[in-house]
Amino acid sequence: MEENKKEYTLGELAELLDISLQGDSAVTVSGIATLAGARSCELSFYHNAAYISDLKATKAGAVILTTAAAQDCATNILLTDNPYLAYARASRLFEKTTSSNGQIHPSAVIDSSAEIGEQVSIGPNTVIDANARIGNRTIIGANVVIGKNSCLGEDVLVYPNVTFYHDVLVGNNAIIHSGVVIGADGFGFARDDQLQVKIAQLGGVIIGSDVEIGAGTTIDRGALEDTVIGNGVKIDNQVQVAHNVRVGENTVICGCSAIAGSSSIGKNCIIAGGVGIINHITIADGVTVTAMTLVNKSITRKGCYSSGTGLSESSVWKKNIVHFRHLDRLSNRLKAIENLKNTKNTKN
Amino acid sequence: MEENKKEYTLGELAELLDISLQGDSAVTVSGIATLAGARSCELSFYHNAAYISDLKATKAGAVILTTAAAQDCATNILLTDNPYLAYARASRLFEKTTSSNGQIHPSAVIDSSAEIGEQVSIGPNTVIDANARIGNRTIIGANVVIGKNSCLGEDVLVYPNVTFYHDVLVGNNAIIHSGVVIGADGFGFARDDQLQVKIAQLGGVIIGSDVEIGAGTTIDRGALEDTVIGNGVKIDNQVQVAHNVRVGENTVICGCSAIAGSSSIGKNCIIAGGVGIINHITIADGVTVTAMTLVNKSITRKGCYSSGTGLSESSVWKKNIVHFRHLDRLSNRLKAIENLKNTKNTKN
Amino acid sequence: MEENKKEYTLGELAELLDISLQGDSAVTVSGIATLAGARSCELSFYHNAAYISDLKATKAGAVILTTAAAQDCATNILLTDNPYLAYARASRLFEKTTSSNGQIHPSAVIDSSAEIGEQVSIGPNTVIDANARIGNRTIIGANVVIGKNSCLGEDVLVYPNVTFYHDVLVGNNAIIHSGVVIGADGFGFARDDQLQVKIAQLGGVIIGSDVEIGAGTTIDRGALEDTVIGNGVKIDNQVQVAHNVRVGENTVICGCSAIAGSSSIGKNCIIAGGVGIINHITIADGVTVTAMTLVNKSITRKGCYSSGTGLSESSVWKKNIVHFRHLDRLSNRLKAIENLKNTKNTKN
Repeated sequence: MEENKKEYTLGELAELLDISLQGDSAVTVSGIATLAGARSCELSFYHNAAYISDLKATKAGAVILTTAAAQDCATNILLTDNPYLAYARASRLFEKTTSSNGQIHPSAVIDSSAEIGEQVSIGPNTVIDANARIGNRTIIGANVVIGKNSCLGEDVLVYPNVTFYHDVLVGNNAIIHSGVVIGADGFGFARDDQLQVKIAQLGGVIIGSDVEIGAGTTIDRGALEDTVIGNGVKIDNQVQVAHNVRVGENTVICGCSAIAGSSSIGKNCIIAGGVGIINHITIADGVTVTAMTLVNKSITRKGCYSSGTGLSESSVWKKNIVHFRHLDRLSNRLKAIENLKNTKNTKN
Repeated sequence: MEENKKEYTLGELAELLDISLQGDSAVTVSGIATLAGARSCELSFYHNAAYISDLKATKAGAVILTTAAAQDCATNILLTDNPYLAYARASRLFEKTTSSNGQIHPSAVIDSSAEIGEQVSIGPNTVIDANARIGNRTIIGANVVIGKNSCLGEDVLVYPNVTFYHDVLVGNNAIIHSGVVIGADGFGFARDDQLQVKIAQLGGVIIGSDVEIGAGTTIDRGALEDTVIGNGVKIDNQVQVAHNVRVGENTVICGCSAIAGSSSIGKNCIIAGGVGIINHITIADGVTVTAMTLVNKSITRKGCYSSGTGLSESSVWKKNIVHFRHLDRLSNRLKAIENLKNTKNTKN
Repeated sequence: MEENKKEYTLGELAELLDISLQGDSAVTVSGIATLAGARSCELSFYHNAAYISDLKATKAGAVILTTAAAQDCATNILLTDNPYLAYARASRLFEKTTSSNGQIHPSAVIDSSAEIGEQVSIGPNTVIDANARIGNRTIIGANVVIGKNSCLGEDVLVYPNVTFYHDVLVGNNAIIHSGVVIGADGFGFARDDQLQVKIAQLGGVIIGSDVEIGAGTTIDRGALEDTVIGNGVKIDNQVQVAHNVRVGENTVICGCSAIAGSSSIGKNCIIAGGVGIINHITIADGVTVTAMTLVNKSITRKGCYSSGTGLSESSVWKKNIVHFRHLDRLSNRLKAIENLKNTKNTKN
């Protein structure tokens, strides 16, 4: 793959980021670092008041920050209302690899019926099956397998050791990390006495554009209709998305969460790490679910939701969980006393 | 791989499914769909009263249903006592790929001592090590690795990017999805002061017949004896099965559950998603465990088991978990009042 | 790879394990087994009083045990203060495969700029990118991908289907199991209205020496600085380690745990299975966290920590969780009664 340029003058950066520079436009930076760790050849950013002393002492060549913070910065300044967003954009300029070299490794096994776009890069030992289509400028790493009729859009980036089953569609600009499996069979069985009879999973998977999918995540194909991941959705590592799930646009799903069959998550939600969402649940737009929460009923209103007990020392925890198992009785005991009191009060 | 036939007359379907037809045996269907989504060239099924209005309005070419529901169906009918099971069976007829084409890709690396059965299909870049044995009609996808002495039965279906370590046995008709790792070392160490000394994992893994294993699932080899998955067990995606675990026949384990070392699960159990079972636990036959439950003690009786707090709005949750951490004290306070009351009553 | 010797006399074993033998030094054993399962050609060990009857009845050729237990053993004895540790060391002698055969499979794709040490073994279809370096005697399985500038130390063992992204450093004697992904992008985005703008992950990953990483585990690269796993850390299967996490020396992390971004775990900790640690948390040295605990605040003192409710029958659980959701109110009701009582007492 092609390598990014590695050095920028502050003048170039101001132009590329479309923000204003206060300082020496000829100064050159070749990387990004934290305020505390940056050297004079590096760019940094300030967006959190907890780091004010780091800002005052930084040796960075330049700092991205707001007008309000400028007075505490002794080095060159890149001014913006949203330093974190500007940092995000700047970070992309220093990535090592971002564009395809258009080379297809001779060890790749590509079916003659597959359609490969222009300037596509395909790594060693990658296998592309019949009637698959790969969009322009898409980069596919080594040891990837793409099943029949699957289709990747343009400017997609697929890291090594990813598996797409058949009939999986991926939009433009998607990023798919190693170990991801898209389109495996949903988990569906009909019971015949004690035996489980497999239900063939005849649907596919549709992944929107601008989606990122983290390492080791699995997204199953639908039973009859498709599993659908909306545009702009960001999914972290080791997330499990079951058959017929629908995830709305720009929703973020953090590591190790699991969404069971046929559940539907709205747009612009934040699902924290380790969350479990049971099957046939609907979650409204704009909902946040905190870490390791079990969502065992639908959420119809925007808001923040949780479950669990929070952390305790184990010795304390052991004493408390005994009572959790008798909460209903404890409540009834309290009610008995209240009733007694009320009776007395009435008597009085 | 060989492709299934894609179209059936209703007469053919009735015969293949061994159920009776009410309607036009010459009508042809080429797929299965939901009642609401089906077109006249598609088959559907009705098994849940929630969809009665969909049944009445369906445009499906035929519907699988019970005698009781027949009166509400205006199209052709395939009659059965168990429509969901008949749907499962019908779904298999419309799968794209079910049988081996008997081709071994020239890029596959197969040790000369490996025994490959008849009509076996092996994908590109798949590696089969010394003394491995592959049963008749088994299909192995691309980029699979099969270790020394491992043995797959007949009619097994292995999707791409699966890893079998050495000395792993898999029965007939198993389905293994992409990203699965079977036979990695169990997690065993002996402490030498602060250092962890690795215990070599000398056992193997035995997977029964008719087992399905979902994408990204890991099943470790035993420390001394084998890890054993019984016949007919169905395991969903990203499940972790530790060393020396035993899972009884026809048990179902849903996504992201984890079973720690040496635990034993009975027959015909249902372990929902995200469940954690600690080590050296025994679970009886016929047990159901609900989603995200921590099983921290053995379960000796058939039944349904749970843990967790259920879902709350985070603002409410934060108020409640404070009290969870003082439940023991709260219980003692209640007891103090009860004692006082009893004393008074005694006095009275 | 080279095969271990498979048989030892008890005399050889005593010398290799540096412990003393009571019995016939010429007796030969060719494997290790449980006390109950061992045959006369096998070695066993006794370290847990629960197995005292198995010890008395064992048919093993020799048993590793302490002086205190020697009186209950009728066969040959290997004497030690720490039988479990001696068993761990003995188990390594019976492993099938431990050393490199120094062969590089012709199908491996190795960039000409990569530096490969002496006596390195590389499996079929493995891909090693530019400027990667592989230390002496390291064994790399089939279908592994090693990215640019990544560096594996000496005597490392990498099982098949592992992915290293670019700029990942791994120390000596590490063991990396199949399906592991090291160096995928951390999960970082800056919000631009509803859109998530990706933050390039410019840091790397540093894995210490003597680390073991279980199947399917993912360790993300840092955003700016590196993600760091200390020497001697043992990580089980399907663990997720997010960007910029730091794990201290000799800490053990069990299966399916997840550590969110920028959190730091001390030395010599034990993180049980299914634990979730939220982001920006610090955990002190020597902490134990029990299974499926949510660590939602920093832990500053050595000790054992837990969360969750423990297991109940679902029918009981359903009654109790209702009250969990009203614990704050229940506590207030109790306080009201206590106040009333105090008032009365004061009145009295």
